[in-house]
Amino acid sequence: MKATVIHAPGDVRLTEVPDPQVVLPTDAVVRVVASCVCGSDLWPYRGANAVDEPRRIGHEFVGVVEEVGPEVTGVRPGQFVIAPFVWSCGECAACRWGMQTSCERGGGWGGEDRDGHFVDGGQGEAVRVPRADGTLVPVDGIDASVDERLLASLLTCSDVMGTGWHAALRAGVQPGETVAVVGDGAVGLCAVLAAGLQGAERVIAMSRYPQRQAVARTFGATDIIETRGDEGVEALRELTDGWGADRVLECVGTHDSMLQAIRSARPGGTVGYVGVPHGIELPIELMFRRNVNLAGGVAPAREYAPMLRDKVLAGEIDPGQVFDAVMPLAEVARAYTAMDERTAIKVMLRP
Amino acid sequence: MKATVIHAPGDVRLTEVPDPQVVLPTDAVVRVVASCVCGSDLWPYRGANAVDEPRRIGHEFVGVVEEVGPEVTGVRPGQFVIAPFVWSCGECAACRWGMQTSCERGGGWGGEDRDGHFVDGGQGEAVRVPRADGTLVPVDGIDASVDERLLASLLTCSDVMGTGWHAALRAGVQPGETVAVVGDGAVGLCAVLAAGLQGAERVIAMSRYPQRQAVARTFGATDIIETRGDEGVEALRELTDGWGADRVLECVGTHDSMLQAIRSARPGGTVGYVGVPHGIELPIELMFRRNVNLAGGVAPAREYAPMLRDKVLAGEIDPGQVFDAVMPLAEVARAYTAMDERTAIKVMLRP
Repeated sequence: MKATVIHAPGDVRLTEVPDPQVVLPTDAVVRVVASCVCGSDLWPYRGANAVDEPRRIGHEFVGVVEEVGPEVTGVRPGQFVIAPFVWSCGECAACRWGMQTSCERGGGWGGEDRDGHFVDGGQGEAVRVPRADGTLVPVDGIDASVDERLLASLLTCSDVMGTGWHAALRAGVQPGETVAVVGDGAVGLCAVLAAGLQGAERVIAMSRYPQRQAVARTFGATDIIETRGDEGVEALRELTDGWGADRVLECVGTHDSMLQAIRSARPGGTVGYVGVPHGIELPIELMFRRNVNLAGGVAPAREYAPMLRDKVLAGEIDPGQVFDAVMPLAEVARAYTAMDERTAIKVMLRP
Repeated sequence: MKATVIHAPGDVRLTEVPDPQVVLPTDAVVRVVASCVCGSDLWPYRGANAVDEPRRIGHEFVGVVEEVGPEVTGVRPGQFVIAPFVWSCGECAACRWGMQTSCERGGGWGGEDRDGHFVDGGQGEAVRVPRADGTLVPVDGIDASVDERLLASLLTCSDVMGTGWHAALRAGVQPGETVAVVGDGAVGLCAVLAAGLQGAERVIAMSRYPQRQAVARTFGATDIIETRGDEGVEALRELTDGWGADRVLECVGTHDSMLQAIRSARPGGTVGYVGVPHGIELPIELMFRRNVNLAGGVAPAREYAPMLRDKVLAGEIDPGQVFDAVMPLAEVARAYTAMDERTAIKVMLRP
C-alpha cells in the first residue's frame, strides 16, 4: 500500500510500504476512508521537532474495518470507525480514568507497539490498529461512501474536536461564563464550539485571519480580537471590565501564546491548554498571585469520541467546517504546504 | 504600642511604634489577642526575600475590635474578630468571585494602603484594619479571655487552615480519592485535615519529623512517607499501584517540592499548590504528557474563614494543634528562631 513518510523537515512523500496485517489477536486492520494533516504534524515539518530518520506520519483517520483478530469483539469487518490519535487498551486504570493518552499499554501511530510490532501512521491507505476494542469507536449506519461533510465532522472526532473539547472541559467552563480562545487553527476553532456547548455565554476568539474568524463566528464566537501580545491582552481586558476571561483555552503551544492565555485569565480563572508545548516557561509567580490555574494536556480523544460522534450524527454540531480543503492522498506534500503557509485551516486527505 | 519590625535577615525586634488610629471611615482598629509566625515570614528572615529597609511583619491575627469608622457596619467595638492574611473590600468582582487576595482595593499587612495611609503588621499589639467590613470575620460569643485551645484554632482561620483548605479545594479532591500532601509545616498539616474534610479516603502525608507525623495522624493522615525526591515519589507510587495520587497538595513552594508533587500525581490528577513559589521551573512537557493540572495560588482566606470558624466553634475541627508553642510577643525573636530551626511547627504570640 501507499503511506506518507516524513524524511526531513519540509520533505513528506507518499511511499510504497508493506500492507498492514493482523499480527496480534487484539488487532484490527482498517482501510482508511479519510485522514488529515494536524497542526502538530507541522512541528517536525517545520523542523521544530527533530526528524532523525524517515518515519511514518499522521495520527487522525476514519475508515472501514477490513479484518480483526480473534479476540476483537467491539468492532467487526465492514464497520465504519473513528480512530483516536493514540491507541489504548481501554482496560487499565488510566483508560478507566478517561486518560487513554496515558494508557499503560497504548501508544502513538507510526511506530512500534510495546511488543515491537509495527503500527502504521494515519496518512496512508490502511493501518494496523493494536488493541482495537480499546481504540476504535464504531459509527453505525454509514460506510465508505458517506458524504464528505459528515465524513469531515466524524474525522474531527479523532483529534481536533476532542482536543478542543478537552481544553474547555479542563478549563472548567461553567454556564454563563466568558471564555477566550487563543489560537485559530482547527483545534482553536473546535474549542470555540466546545466552549459554547459547555455553556459559555460569551466566547472571544483571538484570530487575525478573516476566513478563520468566519468559522469561529459560525461556531459561536461572540467577539473577535485581532491583536496579540500586550495589545491582545489589553483588548481582552477591555471586553471584560478590566479583569480578564473566566476561562482561557490555549490551543497553540508556544511560549507567547501561553503567556497571552495566562495573562488573559481573571483572578481565579483557569487556562485549559492543549497546544503541544514548545519552549514554554511558565510564569509561576504571576499564576500564584492571581490564582490562575493551568489544566489540560494531551487530549484523551478516545474518551470524548463516542459522545462527539453522537452529536455529529444527531446534527447538533458540524465541526467538519474546519476542513477547508480536500486533496487526494497522492498530493500529501501539497497538503503540508497549504497548512504550513496557512492557506488552508485543515486539509482532508482521501486515499 | 509595640510591634514587630524586621530589620534584616535574622533580625526581628519588638519596637515602639505609633498607636494605630481610625483614619478612613471604613477602618477599624483591632487590639490583637493572638498573632503568630508564618512559614512565609521565614522567607525574608532567611534572606530568600530581600529586606531593603526595616519594615513591620506579621499577617495572621485575631483580636477584639476597639474602634470603628462611621461607615463600618459589619463589626462593632468589643467584638472578637479573625483577620485574614490580606485585607479586602468585599465588593469588587474579585471579592465576589471569592478571590479576595486579588481585591482591586485591598492589600497586605505592614505597609501602606492605596491612599498612602499606614497599615500595621499583625505581630503587634494593635492594628489599623482598612475596609473592616470586607476584611474582618466576627466571632460571636467569645472575648479576649477565650481559652487558648479555641483561640489557636480560630487563629488558624486567618491563614494556615484556609490555605490548606484552598490547596485541597483547588486540587478538586473528590470523595473516595487518594490525596498526597507535600510539606509538613502548619499549612501542610492543615491540608491533610482539609483533604479528609473534603472526602479523601486516603491521605498520604510526606513528613520526616515524628512530631509533625503525629499531628498529621491526628488530622487524618492514613499513610506517612518519610523519604523525598525520587525515593519519595517511588514510595508514593508503590502505595498507589504505580500510578500516583489523584490529588497532590503542594505546601512548600520550592522547586524540589513542586517537582515532587507533580511527579506524584496520577495521569489526569491535579496538584493544588499554595506554597509561595521560590525558584520553581515547571516541567510543562511532563505535565502535558500526563495531563497533570496545576491549580491554586495565594489562598483567599477571607472566603473560607466564616465556614472554618463555624466548624471550629462546632468542635468539628481542631486545627489549632499546629501551634506547639506559645510565647509572649516580647519574645518574638525567639519565636522566629524556633520556626527557623524547626523546633516548633508554629508559634503563637500573645501581646
